Amino acid sequence: MASDMSHPYPAFWSPRVAGLEPYVPGEQPRIANLVKLNTNEHPSPPSPRVIAAIAEAARDGLQRYPDPESTSLREAIARRHGLQPAQVFVGNGSDEVLSHAFLAFFQRGEPLLFPDVTYSFYRVWTQLHGIEAEAVPVDEALRIEIDALARRAERGCAGVVIANPNAPTGQGLPLDAIEQLLRACPMRVVLVDEAYVDFGASSAAALVEAHPNLLVVQTLSKSRALAGLRVGFALGQPPLIEALARIKNSFNSYPLDRLAQAGAQAAIEDDEWFSAQCRAVIDTREGLALQLEDLGFEVLPSQANFVFARHPQRDAATLAAALRERAVLVRHFRQPRIDQWLRISIGTRAQCGVLVEALQAILEG
Amino acid sequence: MASDMSHPYPAFWSPRVAGLEPYVPGEQPRIANLVKLNTNEHPSPPSPRVIAAIAEAARDGLQRYPDPESTSLREAIARRHGLQPAQVFVGNGSDEVLSHAFLAFFQRGEPLLFPDVTYSFYRVWTQLHGIEAEAVPVDEALRIEIDALARRAERGCAGVVIANPNAPTGQGLPLDAIEQLLRACPMRVVLVDEAYVDFGASSAAALVEAHPNLLVVQTLSKSRALAGLRVGFALGQPPLIEALARIKNSFNSYPLDRLAQAGAQAAIEDDEWFSAQCRAVIDTREGLALQLEDLGFEVLPSQANFVFARHPQRDAATLAAALRERAVLVRHFRQPRIDQWLRISIGTRAQCGVLVEALQAILEG
Repeated sequence: MASDMSHPYPAFWSPRVAGLEPYVPGEQPRIANLVKLNTNEHPSPPSPRVIAAIAEAARDGLQRYPDPESTSLREAIARRHGLQPAQVFVGNGSDEVLSHAFLAFFQRGEPLLFPDVTYSFYRVWTQLHGIEAEAVPVDEALRIEIDALARRAERGCAGVVIANPNAPTGQGLPLDAIEQLLRACPMRVVLVDEAYVDFGASSAAALVEAHPNLLVVQTLSKSRALAGLRVGFALGQPPLIEALARIKNSFNSYPLDRLAQAGAQAAIEDDEWFSAQCRAVIDTREGLALQLEDLGFEVLPSQANFVFARHPQRDAATLAAALRERAVLVRHFRQPRIDQWLRISIGTRAQCGVLVEALQAILEG
Repeated sequence: MASDMSHPYPAFWSPRVAGLEPYVPGEQPRIANLVKLNTNEHPSPPSPRVIAAIAEAARDGLQRYPDPESTSLREAIARRHGLQPAQVFVGNGSDEVLSHAFLAFFQRGEPLLFPDVTYSFYRVWTQLHGIEAEAVPVDEALRIEIDALARRAERGCAGVVIANPNAPTGQGLPLDAIEQLLRACPMRVVLVDEAYVDFGASSAAALVEAHPNLLVVQTLSKSRALAGLRVGFALGQPPLIEALARIKNSFNSYPLDRLAQAGAQAAIEDDEWFSAQCRAVIDTREGLALQLEDLGFEVLPSQANFVFARHPQRDAATLAAALRERAVLVRHFRQPRIDQWLRISIGTRAQCGVLVEALQAILEG
């Protein structure tokens, strides 16, 4: 499925296809002994209870369709967040949930607002669904400017999307900032993408009961160490969940296979694993940030499982390339405003050690 | 995610959402000792090699993202069909593949043609993607009228979609009929949905090399006994596959989890299991058809893992309800032209025996 756009093939394509600029995920090379800190995966395997649940589900009825409503999984997610199953929607990774939400709520002939520095897939979904996009600049410290965003939202929009903590900066917002946005456009959906929230930020799930225009999206890919299983979910009041269900049932009735449903439920229910592993990632992150600062890097305060850092004297793309030569992958974005920054996922302590040694050698070289 | 449309919630919805009439899958009730012949699942568990491959994949790196390109799986599918990996696209069930294909090829301001009696999700995808739909009637025997469809296609259309064998009738078309369609609209895609092809029909995969406008879609849900794993694929020339990849990469980069990729590859590579199990389903089908005819049913000639049957003296909905009371589920469609027919999936010989006994009792009662 690699793109080779040196040969365009428009003849059979719907006009929309040629206009798409697809998302480019971080590379997943098959190189041995790679220190892979480029896609924000969890450094540890998931809870052993997940592996056991999957093995059991594989032996039990794979010839039958899964529950199209993912009822047991939605019940488990609802319990964990103190909500009802009718306030939970699940999908094939939070990317699928987000795409459905864009179509369900933001396709309405007004611009959708999001920060200019954020998850780059947001812009792709606006193209896919024919939604006008308007980027609101983050400040010089790459922080979301809530006042500016709220003022712009008050003037009319299709909705607002923010990531909290934001990607790729890792900086989080307090819940009163989210509430300010929710009040700024009470008749439009505010979507809060909480892919990284479990590493130190505050979840807006607590605001769902009070705000009919709030949709919170989370994933099991990061804090549950299940990037390989593809499960994400949305929390919101029933009218919003119902809209997502209508899209899902007009697209693919069975988005989650039997193994994903069973594994995800086991993950959600293992609180002990979850608390300990989130704590371990946070501890490693704080240690890595100090080491990077010792090497002369500026490191943004992170509430995610990555840090965003730049070196005042070294070009970021050159640093990333030099790290790659040493079999250490980090993510560099060739984008305005952030092209001198590196996003570094929190690996194991040993992996972070390899990274720091490699950087030391590069900076001394 | 159950729909309760007695309370419409339009305030936050994109206008398109309210206009959708979502697909309704066959019910998946959790009733013990049910004889479930309503969703065309395979009566046997999948190849033991699938279970083993999934268990291994679950132990190996579930914290890491899957290969976004599903490279190994696509190579295995290409080998099996004598094609190149660049001629193979995979997705989260053939429903996802079909939805992407509708958007990729048929959103072009002309009507998309398909038979009036066919898989009812086709019409749902035209609504989701804003595609005009035009149904071309099947004949009195519920057979696709290739001449009529080809003549209509020659007059201009966005493309043609047929299921071969057709759903829910089970009747197959020969490859020269497919070729007639391909020649009727050489600048538009003809999509052949082969969900049931392995139970006795001829695959158009053999025509891919010769026809740039052919897209063949298959699933592992039926003949590979993997409805619970959600894997489908498309075969076509690289320009068509590239369009699907662009949609996929603008929607969800990682549609297939690590377990689905591993399990599906093991399934595709187990030829022995596949041949024996397809043969078993066909043998059971032929026996069931004879028994149903003995009970007075008219049974359409089937090349699928189900039969489509009606009883000249009994109302189909009443029969389905009476079967349900005896814990036997079959599928009845409340649709014009086919509301006196029942679609009965091929179960084990024992399950078919229970069905026949139940029908006998109902007809004598």
